[in-house]
Amino acid sequence: MRLTILGCYSATPRTFTNPTSQVLEVKNHLFLIDCGEGTQVQLRKCKIRFSRIKHIFISHLHGDHFFGLPGLISTFRLLGRETELHIYGPKGIKEAITILLKLGDSWTNYPLVFHELSSQSSELLFEDDKVIVHTIPLDHRVYTNGFVFKEKPLPRTLNVEATRKYGIDKSQFIKIKSGKDGMSKDGNVIANQKLTFDPPKPKSYAFCSDTAYNESIVPLIKNVDVLYHESTFLETEARLCAKTKHSTSKQAGTIAKLAGAGQLILGHYSTRYKSIELFKEEAQKEFPKVVLAEDGKTFEI
Amino acid sequence: MRLTILGCYSATPRTFTNPTSQVLEVKNHLFLIDCGEGTQVQLRKCKIRFSRIKHIFISHLHGDHFFGLPGLISTFRLLGRETELHIYGPKGIKEAITILLKLGDSWTNYPLVFHELSSQSSELLFEDDKVIVHTIPLDHRVYTNGFVFKEKPLPRTLNVEATRKYGIDKSQFIKIKSGKDGMSKDGNVIANQKLTFDPPKPKSYAFCSDTAYNESIVPLIKNVDVLYHESTFLETEARLCAKTKHSTSKQAGTIAKLAGAGQLILGHYSTRYKSIELFKEEAQKEFPKVVLAEDGKTFEI
Repeated sequence: MRLTILGCYSATPRTFTNPTSQVLEVKNHLFLIDCGEGTQVQLRKCKIRFSRIKHIFISHLHGDHFFGLPGLISTFRLLGRETELHIYGPKGIKEAITILLKLGDSWTNYPLVFHELSSQSSELLFEDDKVIVHTIPLDHRVYTNGFVFKEKPLPRTLNVEATRKYGIDKSQFIKIKSGKDGMSKDGNVIANQKLTFDPPKPKSYAFCSDTAYNESIVPLIKNVDVLYHESTFLETEARLCAKTKHSTSKQAGTIAKLAGAGQLILGHYSTRYKSIELFKEEAQKEFPKVVLAEDGKTFEI
Repeated sequence: MRLTILGCYSATPRTFTNPTSQVLEVKNHLFLIDCGEGTQVQLRKCKIRFSRIKHIFISHLHGDHFFGLPGLISTFRLLGRETELHIYGPKGIKEAITILLKLGDSWTNYPLVFHELSSQSSELLFEDDKVIVHTIPLDHRVYTNGFVFKEKPLPRTLNVEATRKYGIDKSQFIKIKSGKDGMSKDGNVIANQKLTFDPPKPKSYAFCSDTAYNESIVPLIKNVDVLYHESTFLETEARLCAKTKHSTSKQAGTIAKLAGAGQLILGHYSTRYKSIELFKEEAQKEFPKVVLAEDGKTFEI
């Protein structure tokens, strides 16, 4: 998995910071997560091929998370896109985009498929043979979902050396690769586990933004390799969290600790602070493995 | 008058070019004309104070001319704006913006006043004691207006030397300033024109984008000081104008010539050409005083 941060600041775009958007590359998919204004320019700056994006996940309908979407949809059309584009987002997103396209008499010439969300429980959004994506219901001022992306376990791979050791004939290899046990020349059953290698551990990534502190998400992100959790404020501004339904950096650290995450990425910074290093220092009091999202930065998971 | 080009390229925003938006400063007004995606960042780069913008004119509802508007409206709210914002644009713009704000539960806390346009004839949009703005109906794929901004004539100013020469008593000065004739000590009527200076010639600016070649606009922009006219294509691509309803650079030059404009600014360039200098060379075959719009460039009118 490779995560590219296109934008990770809260509220309005500025000359040098962008609102929320990120690209997750996993098993040959490029998933776009949120799409604040300026996302298409950030995609170009990060040299990400537009045509590879086939699924866009929108957390909620605040402008800093989706005002770049109409422009991106239009650009896909101008670039002559023909492949389907799937958009997952809160109920209402279809009407909003449709009105904008209708007003401009600019219907897409590629299939635009909306998957409108309204469930208060986690639901399955996407699944193929390698990847599975679920929503994470969050607690914000408007209906909001995070998303958890999980690689599926790969099949075990044949340990050729072990097959020789146990005297397994090549004619059994297909069977063993499919998970069955083997039979040695002298008629003994050899457990599949002895004849195959463990596959690499499947990776997982959870995106949680925007949200107030919400422990009910912990079971949904348990043991995730990387957790992106918003940290709009520091504890000095914790009083603002109740009204705005945002989190402090310390709260993000606590969620990472409770979830047993491998790593915590912070983002959605309020621009009131002098340095984003302050967010890292605060979260590390709860959870040690903290890194800071920055526009244009890439993380290998 | 001072014109600042925020963006002047057609279609999609790129790393180094922006879609249409410009700011016209005239008599203490800052009029924003069109608002492609990224306009608020361009405003910041050009150090234009957001609070000074009270009137936004949208030519038509293609994304490259208004997809920056929802974000700008939201940013005004986040900046604590309280003063009215007037938006002039095609019928439908109110519904589109309203839906986006409603979905995000992000109503403005300042009055947002829509002036929806649907007339096929030129109409008055704005007038105060110093400036007057009318629409210029254009010929594009969707309902589109250009805009002409005109300073009103200033009053004539008193020529103190002339009043002495003709022996005019100071008691008549208010009367003369209001346009009345004067009376000399020996009882002769002295024409107002002899006792006052001509005011500076009022300036005018016309914005025409997007449009096919359309001579019917000429009477509306007659003798304008500066004409901004789209030139999406060069004559080598003239065949594309019929379908896309855009103009070539040569056609823009012809309109400037027919209108007797003082100067022609070209913009809305297709990005297919190696150099925008080609647009200037072509237009100059029809009209000599051509300049090229460029993102971030300012023109004094």
